[in-house]
Amino acid sequence: MQNFTFVNPTRIIFGKAVVAKLGPEAAAAGKKALLVYGGGSIKKNGVYDVLTGALKANGVEIVEHAGVKPNPALSHVKAGIEKAKANGCDVVVAAGGGSVIDEAKAIAAGARFPGDVWDFFCGKAEIREALPLFTALTLPATGSEMNAGCVVTNEATAQKYSAHSPALFPRVSALDPETTLTLPRAQVANGAVDALAHIIEGYFTTRDADAEITDEVVHALARSVVASTLRILKDPADYNARASMMWSATLALNGLATCGYGGMNFINHAIEHSLSALYDIAHGAGLAIVMPAWFKHHLETAGPARLEKFGAAVFGVKTADETILAFEDFFRKAGAPVRLPEAGIPPEDIPKIAANAMGLIRLWGMKHEQPEIEKILNKAK
Amino acid sequence: MQNFTFVNPTRIIFGKAVVAKLGPEAAAAGKKALLVYGGGSIKKNGVYDVLTGALKANGVEIVEHAGVKPNPALSHVKAGIEKAKANGCDVVVAAGGGSVIDEAKAIAAGARFPGDVWDFFCGKAEIREALPLFTALTLPATGSEMNAGCVVTNEATAQKYSAHSPALFPRVSALDPETTLTLPRAQVANGAVDALAHIIEGYFTTRDADAEITDEVVHALARSVVASTLRILKDPADYNARASMMWSATLALNGLATCGYGGMNFINHAIEHSLSALYDIAHGAGLAIVMPAWFKHHLETAGPARLEKFGAAVFGVKTADETILAFEDFFRKAGAPVRLPEAGIPPEDIPKIAANAMGLIRLWGMKHEQPEIEKILNKAK
Repeated sequence: MQNFTFVNPTRIIFGKAVVAKLGPEAAAAGKKALLVYGGGSIKKNGVYDVLTGALKANGVEIVEHAGVKPNPALSHVKAGIEKAKANGCDVVVAAGGGSVIDEAKAIAAGARFPGDVWDFFCGKAEIREALPLFTALTLPATGSEMNAGCVVTNEATAQKYSAHSPALFPRVSALDPETTLTLPRAQVANGAVDALAHIIEGYFTTRDADAEITDEVVHALARSVVASTLRILKDPADYNARASMMWSATLALNGLATCGYGGMNFINHAIEHSLSALYDIAHGAGLAIVMPAWFKHHLETAGPARLEKFGAAVFGVKTADETILAFEDFFRKAGAPVRLPEAGIPPEDIPKIAANAMGLIRLWGMKHEQPEIEKILNKAK
Repeated sequence: MQNFTFVNPTRIIFGKAVVAKLGPEAAAAGKKALLVYGGGSIKKNGVYDVLTGALKANGVEIVEHAGVKPNPALSHVKAGIEKAKANGCDVVVAAGGGSVIDEAKAIAAGARFPGDVWDFFCGKAEIREALPLFTALTLPATGSEMNAGCVVTNEATAQKYSAHSPALFPRVSALDPETTLTLPRAQVANGAVDALAHIIEGYFTTRDADAEITDEVVHALARSVVASTLRILKDPADYNARASMMWSATLALNGLATCGYGGMNFINHAIEHSLSALYDIAHGAGLAIVMPAWFKHHLETAGPARLEKFGAAVFGVKTADETILAFEDFFRKAGAPVRLPEAGIPPEDIPKIAANAMGLIRLWGMKHEQPEIEKILNKAK
């Protein structure tokens, strides 16, 4: 077990009817909020009315910044920063899924920075401060509601890059599983795949496979994501399954799932980011394609031990091959694509995808070359 | 799954040679530290030298408060408060196990309070502020290094009571598993039992048994505690087993193991506190006696479902009876007593023990009467 530091100051308020609690919380931090949201689903599920009502009732003025897209775009982030600065916003409130929260984080940091916000993402500048951030999560998937990272896509350069800083931890995140009851099936699938991808990345690329407690935590989270998702697909109105899924996805990327693993590779994410940057597909869909291919590569290069251990604990199977098949089976059941053509991506593009992925792989200091990435992607044809 | 709030701001620095990192951390919070420790084991294992060296090297003056006992005594807490006040200490540093950290918390709160510190424990006053606290943990067991509670024994009244406040979260806790390599076997056993007791208390008294993610987390932590302890008993020098045990015990009572369970009873702890208050036995030893008895009572009153689920996931057994036997078997293997006489406690004292427990049960607002507590204790004869 390797040395590690764990800290996560975000306060989670979880359960039915908790969104309104963000009103007094935000009011304690500021007087004028930039309210960041997406395409308007929060107006259909009632979150918008509850949240704006609670903010106003607590004396917080609201400046709206709507229209955040999945794979949030740098241009829209910059527009949000301008809006926050022009209106003197002193707090940011995000309502939506991981893309909305990620964009809100980028805006919160950019609003306190005189330079180009993209510098945070390509390693040219460090985030030292940010406006206080409050979130109402409506889509369990990315874990952004309880971590210090965010991902933004530069449309001009087709780069989907990330930034991290302790300043980006949300102060408070409100997680109401009832707001997820109306999620389309595809978003349920994408969220489950994304959470699972976060859970496994450290487990399979650890430098130290004798961190038993973290292996156990990883198994626990993965079992919960799989079981909850299957319950949700059977009965979308199953509140307790929605709740287990929501909390599992948060825990999947809040730091717990990598404690003691030492160095880890975010290799599946690095490859996937090029898929969603180039084809604008959902992150979860891209991961469902990349992960089985990467597992096959992992089996060839690292042997069967970790796949066998994971498969036995999570899927009740014996061999590494069966574990990979169990992942694919789960992704298919959830409705996610597991091969490039199933997402409309032509295999001829593999060199282009690999070349794009190399940008992030170099930026993150990972030791992979383009031929290896192409080899992995060739297993996803 | 019931509504919950989760927040835990303590920073954990975990691994080899991390104790010295408390020097700069404490220096950022204060200039004069009350150094709280126990009987001197930290002088044998090197923690004392490293810690005092690091504090001094960072310009922090040290006022020593040694001699904390297992089941820390109110009189010693009060002496510590006087010392902190008289010397103008502005930070508290604890080095040791849960008793040391608990006493340090009580002192940290008492040093900022004009009244009687015991008022915090019997519900007459609320802790609103405390001196900043830093801890070097040397005994995995109580979880105090990453939570906001503490337990103190009033020797005059034989009351072992607890206090809680967000102000009691340690700022930083340094967990070096190497400092646990020389622990006596009995302390290994007591720590394992205590951690397991924390893990199961919510699971078995939940008002909502459909919080699958938290059930999974509980199973994961319990499996890790059991497996790590068996490895340690086999090979006390097994660093990775020590590390897994240490992190498991911390996670066992940092809030994660009860999320979504709604109301819970700390019934095993309430009963045990009277054992250690009356007989000054180790908390873990007392719990190893109480838990099997309480499980038998739980089986009679609540049915077999939870015991079966837990046993299948953690011990690989099928029936509720087998689960209880598996607990006893583990406690015995670890060297803990599982019946009152094995700890030298005469069964004739059961009415007295139950009467003492009722004090805490009433204080915590739990719905149990003395005959029920006696009935439970009679199963531990």
